[in-house]
Amino acid sequence: MTTTQLIEQIRKKQSFLCIGLDPDLDKIPTHLHQYEDPIFEFNKAIIDATHHLCVAYKPNTAFYECYGIKGWKSLEKTIQYLNNKYPEIFTIADAKRGDIGNTSTRYAKAFFEQLNFDSITVAPYMGKDSVEPFLSFKNKHTILLALTSNEGALDFQTQNTTDTTLYKMVLEKSKTWKNATQLMYVVGATKAEYFKEIRNIVPDNFLLVPGVGAQGGSVEEVCKYGLNKNIGLLINSSRGIIYASNQSNFAVQAQIEAQKLQQEMQLELTKHSII
Amino acid sequence: MTTTQLIEQIRKKQSFLCIGLDPDLDKIPTHLHQYEDPIFEFNKAIIDATHHLCVAYKPNTAFYECYGIKGWKSLEKTIQYLNNKYPEIFTIADAKRGDIGNTSTRYAKAFFEQLNFDSITVAPYMGKDSVEPFLSFKNKHTILLALTSNEGALDFQTQNTTDTTLYKMVLEKSKTWKNATQLMYVVGATKAEYFKEIRNIVPDNFLLVPGVGAQGGSVEEVCKYGLNKNIGLLINSSRGIIYASNQSNFAVQAQIEAQKLQQEMQLELTKHSII
Repeated sequence: MTTTQLIEQIRKKQSFLCIGLDPDLDKIPTHLHQYEDPIFEFNKAIIDATHHLCVAYKPNTAFYECYGIKGWKSLEKTIQYLNNKYPEIFTIADAKRGDIGNTSTRYAKAFFEQLNFDSITVAPYMGKDSVEPFLSFKNKHTILLALTSNEGALDFQTQNTTDTTLYKMVLEKSKTWKNATQLMYVVGATKAEYFKEIRNIVPDNFLLVPGVGAQGGSVEEVCKYGLNKNIGLLINSSRGIIYASNQSNFAVQAQIEAQKLQQEMQLELTKHSII
Repeated sequence: MTTTQLIEQIRKKQSFLCIGLDPDLDKIPTHLHQYEDPIFEFNKAIIDATHHLCVAYKPNTAFYECYGIKGWKSLEKTIQYLNNKYPEIFTIADAKRGDIGNTSTRYAKAFFEQLNFDSITVAPYMGKDSVEPFLSFKNKHTILLALTSNEGALDFQTQNTTDTTLYKMVLEKSKTWKNATQLMYVVGATKAEYFKEIRNIVPDNFLLVPGVGAQGGSVEEVCKYGLNKNIGLLINSSRGIIYASNQSNFAVQAQIEAQKLQQEMQLELTKHSII
């Protein structure tokens, strides 16, 4: 998917909501356990109930890998379902991969070709030649970890380097990499005060913002500095939506929570004169 | 596996060789394509021919994920084969994972429980609470990326922070994390000049050293400062061993290459009065 198509979808739906598909067999409604693939059935119901309110889905691979091959089958079925039934949706493999060049190419093939995701999250620690292989795939997007929403972000990401802090160095350097226009960045919503400085460095790139809802961030605060003329934001919520209820009406409850966020986003788009 | 068991195995085999199982369908001998699972057949032959010369195998997950579910099946069969037939061997999932706490626990379960690897490589960018979940598994080991062997290591890892460089900060901080004795570190062999400084910070931990052979590092140079009283080194070679030949005699050729490295290691262990 091109960035232009993503922006068109956001304008049409008046939403820049991304829903995290992080299924947990201990948390999904018990009646789903009668199916052969409860995780896929859960995802399918969530997707069918929320696809008109969001523009992206983000399965985190850890929630599938922990169930072994069965989990990978659920992931494969989920992305196939999304690509077949809702091809306008932007898909994110939240995989946080990254390795030496040759090996990163294989991860890129796994997620961009085998599974046909539109994008993947990538860790920057190994530098340029570990990220550029992902960027060489046309109309695919690489979402680089910049500033994450967990406490451990303070361990290294916000540490001072000679001229700047590490996460700003990641932003600055990555801008110079080949096909850098296909880069997006993960920026944790619990660090809203950082958005202004981040927009000074990367005014145009999309930012994927986890941490709204259960992790405590606010849509309004993120939008204050995060929005740009092409929206430039994808705000993610996982648990707050998918586990709104563990009863048989879970999909309806998920829809209600997704709609609340969509309405907040619509308000922000209006307030910032974007729609 | 405990660290003591690993050390005993090294002393017995007079080898601290780790073999990277990075199979590539385009590189393995053509006669293997007749099998239902050529990758597993390839790994099995390499393992049977080299297990007495090495102490660890390290499949890199990218080389399996790129083949989708079929690839994950090959990975599962490979680790099961290792655990059943050669339980004394130390196994490393070279997966370079890392995520917020709750999610890292799922990756740990995927590799330590589902697949029953002894250890996993983890990226440090997200900090303490992204790594500690791996460290809470008993007799399992977390191998943290410190200084990698690729050019991109210079982008962030060797950058100066206020008091030190980033990779040294990763070493220093991680020493204070809970169950830090279960930490090992990835240190690229092409950076042998750094080993002295690294040993000042982490004198006791095992270092996993990729980059010997195809990537240009030397066993002797690594041992000069890298060896400690409990050996403390696992030196990896992948391509140099597994692709020594692409003919029907590939396993014998792999054995010959593995033996060369084992003999170099034996010499170093003698030279340093460890055996």
